[in-house]
This record gives sequence, structure tokens and C-alpha cells, in this order.
Amino acid sequence: MHAITIPEPGGPEALVWDEVPDPVPGEGEALVEVVAGAVNRADILQRQGFYDPPAGASPYPGLECSGRITALGQGVSGWSVGDEVCALLSGGGYAEKVAVPAGQLLPVPKGVDLRQAAALPEVVCTVWSNVFMVAHLRPGETLLVHGGSSGIGTMAIQLAKAVGARVAVTAGTREKLERCAALGADVLINYREQDFVAEIRQATDGAGADVILDNMGAKYLDRNVQALAVNGRLAIIGMQGGIKGELNIAALLNKRAAISATSLRARPLGEKAAIVAAVREHVWPLLDAGHVRPVVDRELPMSEAGAAHRVVEESGHIGKVLLVAP
Amino acid sequence: MHAITIPEPGGPEALVWDEVPDPVPGEGEALVEVVAGAVNRADILQRQGFYDPPAGASPYPGLECSGRITALGQGVSGWSVGDEVCALLSGGGYAEKVAVPAGQLLPVPKGVDLRQAAALPEVVCTVWSNVFMVAHLRPGETLLVHGGSSGIGTMAIQLAKAVGARVAVTAGTREKLERCAALGADVLINYREQDFVAEIRQATDGAGADVILDNMGAKYLDRNVQALAVNGRLAIIGMQGGIKGELNIAALLNKRAAISATSLRARPLGEKAAIVAAVREHVWPLLDAGHVRPVVDRELPMSEAGAAHRVVEESGHIGKVLLVAP
Repeated sequence: MHAITIPEPGGPEALVWDEVPDPVPGEGEALVEVVAGAVNRADILQRQGFYDPPAGASPYPGLECSGRITALGQGVSGWSVGDEVCALLSGGGYAEKVAVPAGQLLPVPKGVDLRQAAALPEVVCTVWSNVFMVAHLRPGETLLVHGGSSGIGTMAIQLAKAVGARVAVTAGTREKLERCAALGADVLINYREQDFVAEIRQATDGAGADVILDNMGAKYLDRNVQALAVNGRLAIIGMQGGIKGELNIAALLNKRAAISATSLRARPLGEKAAIVAAVREHVWPLLDAGHVRPVVDRELPMSEAGAAHRVVEESGHIGKVLLVAP
Repeated sequence: MHAITIPEPGGPEALVWDEVPDPVPGEGEALVEVVAGAVNRADILQRQGFYDPPAGASPYPGLECSGRITALGQGVSGWSVGDEVCALLSGGGYAEKVAVPAGQLLPVPKGVDLRQAAALPEVVCTVWSNVFMVAHLRPGETLLVHGGSSGIGTMAIQLAKAVGARVAVTAGTREKLERCAALGADVLINYREQDFVAEIRQATDGAGADVILDNMGAKYLDRNVQALAVNGRLAIIGMQGGIKGELNIAALLNKRAAISATSLRARPLGEKAAIVAAVREHVWPLLDAGHVRPVVDRELPMSEAGAAHRVVEESGHIGKVLLVAP
């Protein structure tokens, strides 16, 4: 088969579409013929040499895909050859075939195009595990989503609205904020022109956000704590603004607040399967009913993954960038 | 009645045993004739002028007491005049009488002296709410308790052992560590001579602590994150080592770990009542059965509260320092 390989870490040109051996499904795995993959920021870190795949994972980038099952390893039940699926991966989504632990497979939701289903697994699992399983966002609470127009952000807006929460978002352009509003965001904050702490306080009668979903890390740490409400929960899923930041523990304590930081990729199989099962129970009905939709910025040929990385690195996109297999 | 007043913030001599008006129980409150109160570090901060009582609380220090109910306000059920009780307070425990919301009353456990019951409410509610309700310590997990010989520490050791967890403690002297061992602590770390990060790793085959109960704040923040296991939870309840510290978000994220910071005093009545109810359900049976005991360092006359503060400030004590009413 062909896959995107990274002979040497570097810029987008480091991604090389090359012929590689076919993967073989192990016990408990399905072999999926990939129809589309999707770009995540973690793929860019991997390309740059900063984020090696965990032990046992495919060496090729790509944390999610959609496609058709073409073979089953031993001990897989509930799935059949020919099933159309999407999948959460530990790597290998930028390829024509990938072996997937059965616990990370999801059916293609009703009314969602098979290609576009590639946009779902990583963002749905990330948002659900952080905002709902860890931070326990409840109906009537306020969620602040940084990067509201990203793949993660567009899904967080939709899921939070679907459970009856209020949603505030930050983004850097009016166009991005308008798209967030169209998805249901109630409070729009242009981080280039406005102070999100002041804006979220004003929008909540001074209370602050009950949950914050953050991709900036150190750069926003202090202001995120300021923006939290009493009993607030800050869920950090990215460090685009740096790794080490000053934490005001007194401010955290006065609010009886909490900070969590997670990633999906390094979790053991059992935890991934538990998240996928929770997502299938709680989010898939919303997708089947059309209340929540994948948001896709554009589709590019998988062999042009470098061009797709440029799009994401320039942050001009809204939602997910897909890579369509030949 | 008499109470300890603080005419001017300052050292231990700022505490003045003076005649003051009797408290009047409001709706939903019981009037308790105090037999004993207990010293908490928050009382010292209040004496120094750094920790004003929350709105509506008694102006006198004292966050817990034991005694007898002498009157009931309107709308109190389940309690009678003459009942021997201990109570979680928002203030006013350093006094001959105190008005207490009924949701913060607890019966005196079987086999516990009425005076010694004053040592229980604050430490039991603090440990239970943080280690179990927030950080969800589970059987078989490892808890690291900083200040293992403190009132909080001695209760944390006993409760964690009672639910089947493993307990590591830090303390500054061999005598304190031996008392921790007698209460059940499995791993003893002298913080003056040993690096607690290295010691906890060695004691857990490199894994680290699943839960850390921390009273040091900024000074230990970075090392606490280093000492956490994957999926670890750091529960901060004090800032004896400072307010602002550098947080390594990458380390937190790689461990999928969480940090919480709480205090009891500022919580609204409903949250306090929920914690007291949980404590009565889960911890009181352990006290009634004698599996968990209050640890009392010494008893001093309440009028000599300044001397009691000196004892706590010098950190020579083990367990709680009680103040016995006349």
C-alpha cells in the first residue's frame, strides 16, 4: 500500500507519499481500507519530530480515519467485513490501510458521508472525554472554548449546546466567530481585540466560565484561572502557547477550582475503548439525528498531506481538513 | 458569654478572652454550649488579619467544636436540646456558645470523649471532601500525605488505610514519622533528609502517587506534579509554601493528571451540609467502630488560645491542639 512517511522530521515537505508494507490485523483488530483521514495538530508535531508514536503504534501519522473493514483479526465480534466505519487511531491514518483495535471502531452515523466521517473520531472523543467525562459540564452551565472554529472547537460548541449548556468561544477573525455563532455559540470573543477574562465575566454576570476547554496551555493559564467560576474546571488539551506557566494557587483555591490536562493518543487500549463506547452511547444518537454534524473545511488528496499541514499551520481553516485516499 | 476576640490582628497575644454578647440561633440553626474547640491553621491566618470570616459568619475564630445543644432555632429537625454533638463551623468555635446550621452538626461517635470530638469535624470533612469526593482515592491506590503528623495528616492516614489504600507521608522528624507509622502509614519520608519525589517513585516501582494531599502550595507544586502517577490527582488544601508556582503543563498532560484546590470555610451552606452528610455516612461508622480515632496532641484552656497558637506555629505537635471551654 501507500502511506505518508516521514523520512526526516521537518516542514510540510517532510511528508512523503511512499510505498510501504501492508499492515496485518492482530488479535482483536480490524483491517480498514481507508477512504479518508483527517489532520490533527499532533500530526504536525509528529512531522516536526516532537511527538513520537507510542510503543506499538503505526509509524505513519494520522489519528483518525474512515473506511471499510476488509479483514478481521482473531477475537473480533460485532463487526463484519464490508462494514463502513470511522476509527480513533494511535497512528497510521495517513495511509491506504490501517489496523485498528476493534474497541476504537465506530459506525458511520446516519446521513454522514463516509468521507466526512473521518472528521469525527478524534474531535468527538477529545471533547466528550474532557468536557463531559472529566470536567462534567452540566446543562445550564457555561463552557468557554478557546479556538472555537477549530475542529475541536466546532464540535465542542455543538455538543455543549446539545446538552443544554451555554457556550462562549474565542477566535481571531469575524468570519470564524460568525461560523461559531451559526453552530450555536452564544458569546463571541475576538481574542485579537478583546480580553476574554473581561468578556466572559460580563457575559456571566461576573461569575465566570464553569468549564474552559483550552488548547493554549501556558500562555492562557493565569487568565484561564481568572476566567473560571467558583467550582470551575479548566481542561487543557493543547500547549500551543507554551508548556510552563505560573499558577496562582490562591486564586484556584478561592474558587475551589480544578485543572486537568489530558491527551488521547497515549492512553492504554482499555481507556480508549471506554471513551469510544461512551461516545457511541451519548454522541452518536445526536449525529444520527442530525443535531450534531462534522464541520469540514476542505478535502485534499492524501498524497498532498504537506499542503494540508500548511493549511492547518496557517490557521485559516474552519473545522477539519480531510485527506482523501486514492 | 466569653469568646476569643481579635481587637487588632497580630501575634498570639492578639487573641483576647473577652465578654461578648451571646449568639442567637437563627432559622435552621442550633445553639451549642461549647465544651471544646480546636486550632486550625486558618485560625492563625485570621488572627494575623489575612483571612477574614465569610459574610454572615461569627467574627470569632474557630472552625470546629464539640458541646451540647441548648436551644434550637425554627425549622430544625433531627436534633434535640441536650444532644451531645460536634460541629463544622464558619467561625466562632473559640467561644462558650456558638450558633450552628443544623446541616453542620454531627453526633459524638461511640467511644469518643465529648472533648476529643472537637478534633474531628474540620479534619474529617477536609480529608473526605478532598481525598475521596474530589480526588476519588480508590482501594489499592497510593496516597501521599504531606505533613503526615498534622491533624489533617493523621486523619488522612487513617481514612486512606481504612478504605484499603497505601499511604506515604512526609514529616520533619523521626518521632513524627513513627507516629504516622503507628497510625498505619506504609512509606515514611523525612522531608529534611530525603527527596519525596525519588522516595515515592522508589516505593511505587516508579509509578508515583495516585493522589497527593498537599498543604504546601507553590513550594511543592512542581515536585508534586513530578511525584504523581499517570491519572494522578493533586489535591491542594493549603499554601504554607506560597501562593504562586510554576506549573509544567506538559508533565501534567503526559500523565493525564489533575490539580484541585479547595477550602471548606467559604463553601455555601448546602455544600457544607452535603460534605457533613457524606462524612456521617462514610466516616462515622469507622469512628463508631474504633477503626479511626481523633489524634489529640494536647488540651489547653480556651482562654489561653494564644499559647495554643504558639504550639501550632512551632509545629512541634502531633495531631490536634484542643481549646477547652471553662
